[in-house]
Amino acid sequence: MSLSSAFASELTWPDYAAAVGHGQTPILIPIGSMEQHGHHMPLHVDVLLPTEFARRVASEIGGLVAPAFTYGYKSHQKSGGGNHLPGTTSLDGATLVAALKDVVKEFARHGVRKICLVNGHFENSWFIVEGIDLALRELRWDGITDLKVVVLSYWDFVHKDAIEQLYPGGFPGWDVEHGGVLETSLMLALHPQLVQLDRAVDHAPASFPPYDVYPVKAAWTPACGTLSSPKEASVEKGHILLEVCTQGIVEALRAEFI
Amino acid sequence: MSLSSAFASELTWPDYAAAVGHGQTPILIPIGSMEQHGHHMPLHVDVLLPTEFARRVASEIGGLVAPAFTYGYKSHQKSGGGNHLPGTTSLDGATLVAALKDVVKEFARHGVRKICLVNGHFENSWFIVEGIDLALRELRWDGITDLKVVVLSYWDFVHKDAIEQLYPGGFPGWDVEHGGVLETSLMLALHPQLVQLDRAVDHAPASFPPYDVYPVKAAWTPACGTLSSPKEASVEKGHILLEVCTQGIVEALRAEFI
Amino acid sequence: MSLSSAFASELTWPDYAAAVGHGQTPILIPIGSMEQHGHHMPLHVDVLLPTEFARRVASEIGGLVAPAFTYGYKSHQKSGGGNHLPGTTSLDGATLVAALKDVVKEFARHGVRKICLVNGHFENSWFIVEGIDLALRELRWDGITDLKVVVLSYWDFVHKDAIEQLYPGGFPGWDVEHGGVLETSLMLALHPQLVQLDRAVDHAPASFPPYDVYPVKAAWTPACGTLSSPKEASVEKGHILLEVCTQGIVEALRAEFI
Amino acid sequence: MSLSSAFASELTWPDYAAAVGHGQTPILIPIGSMEQHGHHMPLHVDVLLPTEFARRVASEIGGLVAPAFTYGYKSHQKSGGGNHLPGTTSLDGATLVAALKDVVKEFARHGVRKICLVNGHFENSWFIVEGIDLALRELRWDGITDLKVVVLSYWDFVHKDAIEQLYPGGFPGWDVEHGGVLETSLMLALHPQLVQLDRAVDHAPASFPPYDVYPVKAAWTPACGTLSSPKEASVEKGHILLEVCTQGIVEALRAEFI
Amino acid sequence: MSLSSAFASELTWPDYAAAVGHGQTPILIPIGSMEQHGHHMPLHVDVLLPTEFARRVASEIGGLVAPAFTYGYKSHQKSGGGNHLPGTTSLDGATLVAALKDVVKEFARHGVRKICLVNGHFENSWFIVEGIDLALRELRWDGITDLKVVVLSYWDFVHKDAIEQLYPGGFPGWDVEHGGVLETSLMLALHPQLVQLDRAVDHAPASFPPYDVYPVKAAWTPACGTLSSPKEASVEKGHILLEVCTQGIVEALRAEFI
Amino acid sequence: MSLSSAFASELTWPDYAAAVGHGQTPILIPIGSMEQHGHHMPLHVDVLLPTEFARRVASEIGGLVAPAFTYGYKSHQKSGGGNHLPGTTSLDGATLVAALKDVVKEFARHGVRKICLVNGHFENSWFIVEGIDLALRELRWDGITDLKVVVLSYWDFVHKDAIEQLYPGGFPGWDVEHGGVLETSLMLALHPQLVQLDRAVDHAPASFPPYDVYPVKAAWTPACGTLSSPKEASVEKGHILLEVCTQGIVEALRAEFI
Repeated sequence: MSLSSAFASELTWPDYAAAVGHGQTPILIPIGSMEQHGHHMPLHVDVLLPTEFARRVASEIGGLVAPAFTYGYKSHQKSGGGNHLPGTTSLDGATLVAALKDVVKEFARHGVRKICLVNGHFENSWFIVEGIDLALRELRWDGITDLKVVVLSYWDFVHKDAIEQLYPGGFPGWDVEHGGVLETSLMLALHPQLVQLDRAVDHAPASFPPYDVYPVKAAWTPACGTLSSPKEASVEKGHILLEVCTQGIVEALRAEFI
Repeated sequence: MSLSSAFASELTWPDYAAAVGHGQTPILIPIGSMEQHGHHMPLHVDVLLPTEFARRVASEIGGLVAPAFTYGYKSHQKSGGGNHLPGTTSLDGATLVAALKDVVKEFARHGVRKICLVNGHFENSWFIVEGIDLALRELRWDGITDLKVVVLSYWDFVHKDAIEQLYPGGFPGWDVEHGGVLETSLMLALHPQLVQLDRAVDHAPASFPPYDVYPVKAAWTPACGTLSSPKEASVEKGHILLEVCTQGIVEALRAEFI
Repeated sequence: MSLSSAFASELTWPDYAAAVGHGQTPILIPIGSMEQHGHHMPLHVDVLLPTEFARRVASEIGGLVAPAFTYGYKSHQKSGGGNHLPGTTSLDGATLVAALKDVVKEFARHGVRKICLVNGHFENSWFIVEGIDLALRELRWDGITDLKVVVLSYWDFVHKDAIEQLYPGGFPGWDVEHGGVLETSLMLALHPQLVQLDRAVDHAPASFPPYDVYPVKAAWTPACGTLSSPKEASVEKGHILLEVCTQGIVEALRAEFI
Repeated sequence: MSLSSAFASELTWPDYAAAVGHGQTPILIPIGSMEQHGHHMPLHVDVLLPTEFARRVASEIGGLVAPAFTYGYKSHQKSGGGNHLPGTTSLDGATLVAALKDVVKEFARHGVRKICLVNGHFENSWFIVEGIDLALRELRWDGITDLKVVVLSYWDFVHKDAIEQLYPGGFPGWDVEHGGVLETSLMLALHPQLVQLDRAVDHAPASFPPYDVYPVKAAWTPACGTLSSPKEASVEKGHILLEVCTQGIVEALRAEFI
Repeated sequence: MSLSSAFASELTWPDYAAAVGHGQTPILIPIGSMEQHGHHMPLHVDVLLPTEFARRVASEIGGLVAPAFTYGYKSHQKSGGGNHLPGTTSLDGATLVAALKDVVKEFARHGVRKICLVNGHFENSWFIVEGIDLALRELRWDGITDLKVVVLSYWDFVHKDAIEQLYPGGFPGWDVEHGGVLETSLMLALHPQLVQLDRAVDHAPASFPPYDVYPVKAAWTPACGTLSSPKEASVEKGHILLEVCTQGIVEALRAEFI
Repeated sequence: MSLSSAFASELTWPDYAAAVGHGQTPILIPIGSMEQHGHHMPLHVDVLLPTEFARRVASEIGGLVAPAFTYGYKSHQKSGGGNHLPGTTSLDGATLVAALKDVVKEFARHGVRKICLVNGHFENSWFIVEGIDLALRELRWDGITDLKVVVLSYWDFVHKDAIEQLYPGGFPGWDVEHGGVLETSLMLALHPQLVQLDRAVDHAPASFPPYDVYPVKAAWTPACGTLSSPKEASVEKGHILLEVCTQGIVEALRAEFI
């Protein structure tokens, strides 16, 4: 069957029902956030990127992309600058858990049996785990025990070779990759009109002590909001990342879903 | 101040902060759903339409559009065909209430003091009311008492004159306007590539007894999922609706927010 | 079997058990509120009226009336004047949903398989829907799938002919029928000692813009709390309403439950 | 000020507002249940009795009675026979807590500053405590710190002298006073038409081991559902109880509220 | 099978799995609190005592002791002095219910089918009941219907003969046994180094009116925090209590679990 | 002031109140879990270790250790083997969040203004963050804005030099340090009687794909339950770890709390 769109929401219900009713078509749900990403990028980077990865992967494996979660869990100081910053617009953990649980259960009701959550916002990770656990529990109570859920964050598919190529000067670690080379390169490759690289602030990677403090000490976050400098970002790196992560996710889903 | 986009999520945080920090810039939040809309329209009609109204209104009054709520409350048989239908993907009431509460509170934290919820899915209505009530309660506990929230559904701005023009054969009522002339005309005017009018099913308006039954009696809903026929929909009617509703909402927000 | 009372709570448990154990006896649950109803009527109009309709219907079809829900969802400005008014005593949405869910599940545990919710307070409507949905979900998890629930608001059974008879000067719409001709006439017919018609305030029907504002603008609600004038109310109209609605509900339940 | 009724719900809102606005008028809320009470009494004994005590006390001290809570917490085997019995219709603990919290907060919003919860169902006790604690917490967040709440169960006012008079053969203890002499005598004095003493089952007081078992062992509860025999109940004892408890509660509230 | 420890948490998982997998080994869960216990005893009396009873009983019947609940429900003025006192560190009711529900369900997942909750803090009682009810409900939804749960508070096993021996001067009642002879004697027998009897305050048993007031009237609680004097406590009485309660619980569990 | 114990629960309330009332004494709360730790270690490793670190640190800085959280969030396959394993006994996320919120608020009520959460179970991390965020929010509503909370996991204080010393053959990463060299060495140094090193299974570090699958694929976890081999564990390494982590935490708390 050839679908007119990779986006489930762009289909009519008869087309959607035909696509998912037999349970073989995977649904990919992008989970993002509305979060500050420095002076040079917009607030929905964490929505745009997993949505695009989901779209590319869906196109390759014959899946469908569900509407993205556009709000996510609270930004953590060490991975997103902190939830005190303007523009960052977050949900309580219980809200994200409930929303994910509800949506996963609805797709299962439609007959979907293969779901992939494509995360674009680090802080969502554990609440995604909980949301799935609760969804699987309630589905089990409804007699549905054959739903398989894959959870991933796209950056985890950047393999060692790519890291060396992308960070010739040394890899600062994913934890401070907030608004840095990874995200900025991807945005440059995909949505250059939304990147104002000239406004980007060059700074040393943020460095934190091995503990957290609450309420956050605002001074620990670089004033610009990014945790590492995006200055070395480039369209080319963006294309490498797109290629590497898409390929990795495609292989993962082929392994798990076929 | 001139913003580069009507969409808050497309701004950098310094631009966003400058726009909203003084509290004068209204935020418009489209609240939609993923819901079947017959054989001829896609599943995200209720997201696309309020988003576009929010965008037009924001452009006129100098507001910003927040990321849309892409999942909404359960479809009701008499206004959306029922939540048993494939493609319809809904949240529990408590989930929608919590998500709305969280997001309203976050915007208030940023300094926003004027929020308009632009609803595109009838069933959301009462959970929006509750979400706002809880948000205002908690904001009050935080000492914030000057937030003003306007709630509206765009179709409530179609005045009597327009109704006569749009429904020369008689107005079936908003309750059965699901996938009918109103929504289809608007989609034809805005997203014609997503409408397959040739697949639309012509049928008499759905007629329901003056009560509900649960679990729903599927036979009460027309098999195609719409509650009235979209056959009389047209691009022209879509433009009338766009004009009438946008103008009405602009006037409402000017009255309340300025 | 002949029961000594239409009210379930007035039976001994052996009589109750005998009546409901086989699942054929319908239970009718009145859902009301404690809400201001103008200068001329008491705060429990929305409890008294659905309770009486439930009693009349139960007597005709051999059902039982459960204890009424005496507190309901928050009064909405356009249908009840608003929840800021004195005397109005309301529940959060989640509370009403939970209470209804619990009670419906308990009746199902007793063996009841036919439940009718008789609503007397407009604002309860959507939380009733959610409460039933959650109850049916959990009952399903317990293997109970044959419970049938009918939901109705008594005024929806006032047919066109009756409306013309009752509102010779034109029908203002149910939305502003708060403390107006409908409720006052019914109270005059049933509980005249609780109506002080001489204190009723005559005023034009309340008129609202096509949107809501929160916190409510108190000035939008007529100072007396009613949304349309009760001056044309009468005992006779009350009897017409009693007859028309009871008959309509009886027919509905006969159609659904037999 | 002389009120036309001791029941708050029977007042118009202006009369109610005048009565409670200054904070001096106590509100008494009866908290009951729908619970089996043996072969000889109806299911709403636990509503009728605290409601009548509340009414008598309110009349003496110039208070108002709020609508009763007609559903309560799950019947416990050792104090109500167990929640597995037919007719017993109960709420989850969280539901009762939430309902009580909401209602207490609403009365406080009206200006009430003296609330007495008149409990008629033993199992409600701890959920009442929690409901009040949460209500006072949230009221504190709203700046309201002068609300005083008295909680009582009417039988705790039966003093030693009365016990000797009422139970000449020895007092079995309040724990097994379910459907026994206390409740039956009160019902005989107040609602004789609802008592069928000829159907009452005479049996030795229920005797339980010093622990609970779940799921309940149904055989531990006397088959008739009462935990002690009502055979010694009488109208005269009912009047003694009415007198003793009313007087005790009046004195308590005079001490606390004046 | 001989276990190296009565404490489940001290076993390796293979030893634990072997012990509980067949469902015959009872798990005993001590439920305590962190609560002030006068000038002479530490804050975790309510944890230490049920843990030791659980250990002794487990050793006799071949059971295992689960990690204790170290925080419990809010201290009540009439049984623990009140939750306003320093050191008392309590959970909301819903939190305790949820924690107990989760843990009971986990043990059932491991194969455990016999659970005994050994309560050491009076105020936990009803939230334990609710936690078990919810756990059994959800386990039922998972098809597990053969879990048996015994709930007890150790002091309920002090029989009449022992009471006469322990309180030769008259038994004040368990309600005021907070930091008094019972708990102090047990602590003297088990953890003498944690008792500073010389700091104990001798006072008449606390006496309360037959109702509660909220917020609590601090003056009702003896300033030292105990509700009856511990002066008559002794090591010998502690040993009697240990013997009597252990024996009683062992018999109860033998009766229920074998 | 010299305290008789580092454990808050071992103090009388007057001693506790004197210690914390001025707000200068830090409270350290160990947060653990009941979780399988391979064939060679017991189920409460994650409680014992943070409790001991908390005790040592408290002794050095004049703090007090609160009762440990003995149950934690669900074991994750990649950091704890998975929650399907026997012995692992976990809480839902919401339960852990609520318990932590309640306890933090209670300590703040006592006057504590410096709290350190000492985590011993990786999976707790994000629910700790949420629990603190909610506690600080509600404390703010109560007017308490000067509470400072430090959150840490003890292993994050193992600096690079120590890692090289401890893992001469290369560091496998904290993620697979479940039941491996770190935890086993610490247990050998502190509780040798609870370690059965001869039963430890030697295996290559677990290797996982860059995504999760739910329900977990049990085969991904080494059959013994550890994620890396404990064979190189030693008492000496345990002492190094004790020294390094204690020192690091002491410095951190001195920096933040003094």
